[in-house]
Amino acid sequence: MEAMIYQGPGRRSWDEVPDPVITDPADAVVQVDAVTICGTDLHILKGDVPEVRPGRVLGHEAVGTVVAAGPAVTTLRPGDRVLVSCISACGRCRYCRTGMFGQCLGGGGWVLGHLIDGTQAEYVRIPFADTSAYRLPDSVADRAALLLADILPTAFEVGVRNGGVRPGDSVLIVGAGPIGLAAVTTARLLTPAHIVVVDPAGPRREAAKTMGADVAVGTPEDAEKVVAELTGGLGADVTIEAVGVPETFELCARLVRPGGRVANVGVHGTPATLHLEHLWMRDVTITTGLVDTCSTPDLLKMVAAGRLDTSGFVTHEFALSDMEAAYRTFADPASTGALKIAAFRDGFRDEPAA
Amino acid sequence: MEAMIYQGPGRRSWDEVPDPVITDPADAVVQVDAVTICGTDLHILKGDVPEVRPGRVLGHEAVGTVVAAGPAVTTLRPGDRVLVSCISACGRCRYCRTGMFGQCLGGGGWVLGHLIDGTQAEYVRIPFADTSAYRLPDSVADRAALLLADILPTAFEVGVRNGGVRPGDSVLIVGAGPIGLAAVTTARLLTPAHIVVVDPAGPRREAAKTMGADVAVGTPEDAEKVVAELTGGLGADVTIEAVGVPETFELCARLVRPGGRVANVGVHGTPATLHLEHLWMRDVTITTGLVDTCSTPDLLKMVAAGRLDTSGFVTHEFALSDMEAAYRTFADPASTGALKIAAFRDGFRDEPAA
Repeated sequence: MEAMIYQGPGRRSWDEVPDPVITDPADAVVQVDAVTICGTDLHILKGDVPEVRPGRVLGHEAVGTVVAAGPAVTTLRPGDRVLVSCISACGRCRYCRTGMFGQCLGGGGWVLGHLIDGTQAEYVRIPFADTSAYRLPDSVADRAALLLADILPTAFEVGVRNGGVRPGDSVLIVGAGPIGLAAVTTARLLTPAHIVVVDPAGPRREAAKTMGADVAVGTPEDAEKVVAELTGGLGADVTIEAVGVPETFELCARLVRPGGRVANVGVHGTPATLHLEHLWMRDVTITTGLVDTCSTPDLLKMVAAGRLDTSGFVTHEFALSDMEAAYRTFADPASTGALKIAAFRDGFRDEPAA
Repeated sequence: MEAMIYQGPGRRSWDEVPDPVITDPADAVVQVDAVTICGTDLHILKGDVPEVRPGRVLGHEAVGTVVAAGPAVTTLRPGDRVLVSCISACGRCRYCRTGMFGQCLGGGGWVLGHLIDGTQAEYVRIPFADTSAYRLPDSVADRAALLLADILPTAFEVGVRNGGVRPGDSVLIVGAGPIGLAAVTTARLLTPAHIVVVDPAGPRREAAKTMGADVAVGTPEDAEKVVAELTGGLGADVTIEAVGVPETFELCARLVRPGGRVANVGVHGTPATLHLEHLWMRDVTITTGLVDTCSTPDLLKMVAAGRLDTSGFVTHEFALSDMEAAYRTFADPASTGALKIAAFRDGFRDEPAA
């Protein structure tokens, strides 16, 4: 088959590699119908994730069709259309038993396109298929389902839910890339009073407003001013970090009110400064997290029921054999305006959802 | 009256000052029967808390007798024996209405010995007396009640409760000063499986073991080793920072397990480094907090019912007129072995509680 291969820092190639096969009774092999690229894939390509070894097939988000299932798989069979989630789950370890699949100790967690071959390929092997893939209802189109593989549960669980967003809250979301926008979309499920977004890119601010932000500003100074105005100078009830650099984390810690919550979603490569000399007496809660995807079934139901609008995320579409162009488009959002891309199996592209 | 006065960085004096008077209808004036000194008072004396102005009467913990009550006070009257809490509460602002008295916006919060004159004096004015003082049952001795003014609710609310200590947890407490020891005592209320304490001072490690720590070690390296042994290498479920320097905070963040909680209790004067490059995907929750004293009534009931052992905290006793000696003893624990001191109104000293 053909697949997108990590060739070491700064290098990738769309290459011929052997087809994946069942190696464990709990495995399934899925033919990839649609796949996307994550900001994390770009981090890997920069060499920021050293545990990814050259030769690894990239990607951890896909929609596909089961073509083979190991003898221990009981809930999926060939022909089933499934969501391939960024998180695999052994289902048996202490973390999986409490729904914390992202921290799986039994060989799952974030492994696809990381520790084992991933989804940017014609076929992918899914470990622990019963507890790692989700059967998709026909009513959910591939474009929408792709967003359920990572960005919607990540933004919802690690941003909105860890941040404890409640009706009436003032929420600041720092960064309006795909994750920040997914935080806007999923924060709205809890009906906050105000969602303020800060991002330097004008088109992303526009997207944030389209998706439900009340205010979108371009600088930290403007964010500070708007939050102060909306909250009588107290600070935001919840701040959500969706960038992954020290400055944006520190902005979140600075603009949260006493008793508020800072939810870090961004993938960080360097330490941040924690101003405990100010924060120690401010009753602030800071959370970090890798998505568990324990919310995926509920998000899927909401998409199917039309309660979660996923339009606007996929800005560019490609054929799977043209993944190289997809990467070029995704990696240069300032020029292309790309948010999420979707690449479809050649000759296979569903109609956009109504 | 006589009182302990902050005279600017590095200087204090036991001096004659005017008696406090009722200045607001909600005030009470309390004659101080017993008072103690907090580590925070030493921070103030170093000049670390610049909003404390020279001339301020120090102290935010006392037991006393109401001698005057303003016309708006409805639940206290002269002669009532009361606990003077480190936190005053207006009872009316958005924070007080949710029990977050430490963040009071109406003139309360931590004000005694900070923004208004404090308790290390013969008399003290208590603002918002109905919602800031607690009537004491006769069964609770002054020595025990003094601990309810700050260290027990602080350790319980900001350490144990923010840390979400649950039955069966492995808890690491960094620092075995009065707050760390109060964290040991109040963590035991939730029956964790293991309490590990780290403190370089041998006598404090002994005190920790007496109060219920299962293991007490002297170095971060030993703490890491013990926690790894007890948790199969995962890390502690909860780590509680009870020192207030960057190194101890960073130790807490390093030794917590994925999905665990770091509760900062220490008063910090400088920033710490937050290693988000490791923590971003570890589902860690970090909390800071000033005590609200919303747990004080429950802790008081537990002391009265014999469910919370407060013996062992007060190591040295003085006459109130000898506060200068009390300070010297408290400020040099390495020589004196002091944990908490108690200073009693001259000629007034209750019998130690049974």
